[in-house]
Amino acid sequence: MKILRINMTALEYIPQEVPLEYINLGGRGLTSKLLSEEVDPKSFALGRDNKIIIAPGLLSGSMAPCSGRVSVGAKSPLTGGIKESNAGGTISQYLAGHDIKALVIEGQPSGKNWWVLVINGDEVKFEVRGDLQGLGNYETMNRLKQEYDSDCGIMSIGPAGEQGCTIASLAATDLEGRPTRHAARGGLGAVLGSKGIKAIVIEKPEKMNKKGVHQEAFRETAKELAKSLVSGKAALTKYGTAVLVNAINEVGGLPTNNYRTGYNQEAGQISGETLHELCQERGGTTGHPCHRGCAIRCSNVFHDAQGEYVTAGLEYETIALLGSNCGVNNLDEIASLDYICDDLGLDTMDMGGALGVAMEAGVLEFGDYEAMKKSILSIVTGGDTLGKILGHGAALTGRVLGVERVPVVKGQTMAAYDPRTLKGTGVTYATTPMGADHTAGNALPGRGGIDCKDPQGQTELSKKLQIISMVCDILGVCIFVGPVEENMATFASLTSSFTGKEISVGGLLEEGRKILRTEVAFNEKAGLGKETNDLPGYFRTEALPNNGLTFDVSSHELNEFKY
Amino acid sequence: MKILRINMTALEYIPQEVPLEYINLGGRGLTSKLLSEEVDPKSFALGRDNKIIIAPGLLSGSMAPCSGRVSVGAKSPLTGGIKESNAGGTISQYLAGHDIKALVIEGQPSGKNWWVLVINGDEVKFEVRGDLQGLGNYETMNRLKQEYDSDCGIMSIGPAGEQGCTIASLAATDLEGRPTRHAARGGLGAVLGSKGIKAIVIEKPEKMNKKGVHQEAFRETAKELAKSLVSGKAALTKYGTAVLVNAINEVGGLPTNNYRTGYNQEAGQISGETLHELCQERGGTTGHPCHRGCAIRCSNVFHDAQGEYVTAGLEYETIALLGSNCGVNNLDEIASLDYICDDLGLDTMDMGGALGVAMEAGVLEFGDYEAMKKSILSIVTGGDTLGKILGHGAALTGRVLGVERVPVVKGQTMAAYDPRTLKGTGVTYATTPMGADHTAGNALPGRGGIDCKDPQGQTELSKKLQIISMVCDILGVCIFVGPVEENMATFASLTSSFTGKEISVGGLLEEGRKILRTEVAFNEKAGLGKETNDLPGYFRTEALPNNGLTFDVSSHELNEFKY
Repeated sequence: MKILRINMTALEYIPQEVPLEYINLGGRGLTSKLLSEEVDPKSFALGRDNKIIIAPGLLSGSMAPCSGRVSVGAKSPLTGGIKESNAGGTISQYLAGHDIKALVIEGQPSGKNWWVLVINGDEVKFEVRGDLQGLGNYETMNRLKQEYDSDCGIMSIGPAGEQGCTIASLAATDLEGRPTRHAARGGLGAVLGSKGIKAIVIEKPEKMNKKGVHQEAFRETAKELAKSLVSGKAALTKYGTAVLVNAINEVGGLPTNNYRTGYNQEAGQISGETLHELCQERGGTTGHPCHRGCAIRCSNVFHDAQGEYVTAGLEYETIALLGSNCGVNNLDEIASLDYICDDLGLDTMDMGGALGVAMEAGVLEFGDYEAMKKSILSIVTGGDTLGKILGHGAALTGRVLGVERVPVVKGQTMAAYDPRTLKGTGVTYATTPMGADHTAGNALPGRGGIDCKDPQGQTELSKKLQIISMVCDILGVCIFVGPVEENMATFASLTSSFTGKEISVGGLLEEGRKILRTEVAFNEKAGLGKETNDLPGYFRTEALPNNGLTFDVSSHELNEFKY
Repeated sequence: MKILRINMTALEYIPQEVPLEYINLGGRGLTSKLLSEEVDPKSFALGRDNKIIIAPGLLSGSMAPCSGRVSVGAKSPLTGGIKESNAGGTISQYLAGHDIKALVIEGQPSGKNWWVLVINGDEVKFEVRGDLQGLGNYETMNRLKQEYDSDCGIMSIGPAGEQGCTIASLAATDLEGRPTRHAARGGLGAVLGSKGIKAIVIEKPEKMNKKGVHQEAFRETAKELAKSLVSGKAALTKYGTAVLVNAINEVGGLPTNNYRTGYNQEAGQISGETLHELCQERGGTTGHPCHRGCAIRCSNVFHDAQGEYVTAGLEYETIALLGSNCGVNNLDEIASLDYICDDLGLDTMDMGGALGVAMEAGVLEFGDYEAMKKSILSIVTGGDTLGKILGHGAALTGRVLGVERVPVVKGQTMAAYDPRTLKGTGVTYATTPMGADHTAGNALPGRGGIDCKDPQGQTELSKKLQIISMVCDILGVCIFVGPVEENMATFASLTSSFTGKEISVGGLLEEGRKILRTEVAFNEKAGLGKETNDLPGYFRTEALPNNGLTFDVSSHELNEFKY
């Protein structure tokens, strides 16, 4: 294994031996540790001193089920703090197959060229590709697949990342080579763009099956886990994450009309059940895997009424934020907006949040799909003020339009779980170094055996989930396997047999805690101290009309929060 | 004396007795103390929970020379922290004449009406004035003077404040009833706009001469101070604050081309000397007082080549930031931009900073006056993205345009003193709760007897100046009288004889320190902790080409900074 260090100032690369302390880290563990050691927390996120680090999870490339998540880390131009965003697709297993522990991309080229990096084994080619400038992720990937190999892995940015939109995503190829998997959150696409990089092509490696040190034990545990996932996650397989639309709506936490209410009467039209039916009718797919070896297969391929491909990987959060939160209750419309965001390279969640805020300001109408489409597209078509503003997310949009009701923490749009109803997730929004990111520790109804609406015990639950989520992110294991305590023994066993170094559940959790503390320390130096660990005031004062709840976990608890 | 509490939700007012602890406070002392007691630091700056407080200085309305500053305080929508911005003109003496210790404006009206408040003695009239919507400050004040009294005092906002631009100013009438005095910094005009208030008319009070408790002693000290100011500030009287153009340029700290350099070869064209000549040639004025009883008279009235009025109160900071910093080296052009900003109600300094950043991004050309004019005016004419962005200042402009070299602290544009050359002012930028505001403690060359270019001793000097400046702001005394230690005995004597309560120099300084600590505590709760007490990194790494200096006061010193 090696760390492949790519310097965009000098246009040089060096494969480096992996320092001992990083050997048993992967994914977010590695991105956050490297960032905190190598990047000045006060540096300009889109400048030469930031780095973007791409690291497969520790177990990626092995037969551990659902272990194909790749972490992308950098100082975020959106939150101003440390950020990790991970994606499925082919990238993680390909990097692991090349024995790459991490790509560390640093510096900044002089001049205004756009580069494509081509990675194969220990080698990096730097190719000037001005012809790709301005292209969407779909066309970019299509061209690159034709030129290299239809099986290559690609991470790319769309026009949003090129233009430095601070909610720009990094697209990653799915199994069909489409840009439907995204390291979406925190504007990391703008960071790649700031390095002059339009795309990274990763040639398909010859071998992709990492067997681990104690092969037999590893295989056995992996097999058992896969079996339990296939039987235990049937709803996710059938309906995808969209299964949450009805579930979260029923509990009263589905963001609707810029978080004005947590109950959407028309949620049935955009539910996982409806999605499943439409896919069946139109030749789309549910139960689609985002990477090889996924035992859950929560993804989907969505077709229009004519049976033509529209988008893939249509997730609950996209449906809730570009849909319900913007008054759009039509899956065809949401799918089309999802395609546009994937193509331009935008986080659907922060874009949904920003559009909701623009609607709150009266600049757009709730439910006006055509106007939403036009506003997002104006990032490329120009001529409209709004796209330029929306492309920087809900916080900036709220600032420019003078809106109070802006559902953000640390400048990032809340994921699609109203914290007044899902209070544990609210604690995560407030306290995670990541901004209002559900993947950092999502306290879904039922988790931890407490009522999600009860303020008591949510801080402890969130902390537990945040630590377990971190463990998943280090291992590269999808959080749909975790984040539950019951799996920790399996993770410890997998990690021990894979690395050959015995680690207990406690050891694994302590590793997670350590990285979280590292992230907190980075943020504090960056100016995001614990004072920023709270939700916007109106979540505490404005009750949800559907259930009368406010966010009432005490500020003191949030303030005292420590991993 | 009373506190006049105006509730914009209920459209009611109550004159309140002044609590004992506020009796000997005024100006910033009162605004900051009231804000910290009554406003939640986390509240939305443009929402119902913020308050805007307008308080004359403690000595305002008396014959103490240059004591006519009025403080405006609120949570700032620009910095997110506590803010005080003060202005000259007629307001302070009028409020004092009505025995008003402070106007405390709270709440928010429902509906979208624009209101004018008319204040006379203990009474407030609320008048709906939709007809004023969209008008500039000049036309607004002209209409109101015709309707009320040509001698009334007015504070108003222009279209920028109506639209919630977070660098919107509050204009205040000068002695000629023009909107040339501004509480400019921190977006306080947007806060007034968020309360639905277009203007506040203050009828001219019958009596304006507060004599103090020990009348004789007070008069004597005041007279002596006036005499010393007339003889000691001759350069300011002759050239206005523009006298600093050549002085700061020669020391190498005049911001030029977005702070790329601190020396402008063409500074002579925009100097105080040139301004003085043009005023003499064209029938303008220098040595113009901004309020009655000013012994310094640093203001001016600027005419065009045809002898027609262009603007008044053209200050060094405006010339440096809208001029030199944007590559504009022509006083006619700068005066015209100053007029536009005064009329629209914009902080010339943050607008200059924002334009410089747009030039850095290549969106505008350095020196392109016509394009600057068009961009600023697009806030009212619409149709251009840029105005909407510039109206939120340099920090947001930098964020949207992806620029690293953004000269801000706590989101506010640095005043026109390059901190690499004027290191004490740099310490003030970094540490004051006000953002990068020179009026909080400006370490001009020669102050404190140390070399402004030497990093040693600057923290102590800045601290001293910040405390003395606070004392000036409490008393309502122009900082051109202070902030020097030699005047503190005079201030103590004036305060003692005015209030009848003996206060020593030490006591006065301790009062200043207390208010500063109160402000720091507010900011910490608002999320602006000491991690935000630093300059953008490039001031530490990028040397000024003219003198090779970087900002090298240690971060540790800034971090340990305490009043």
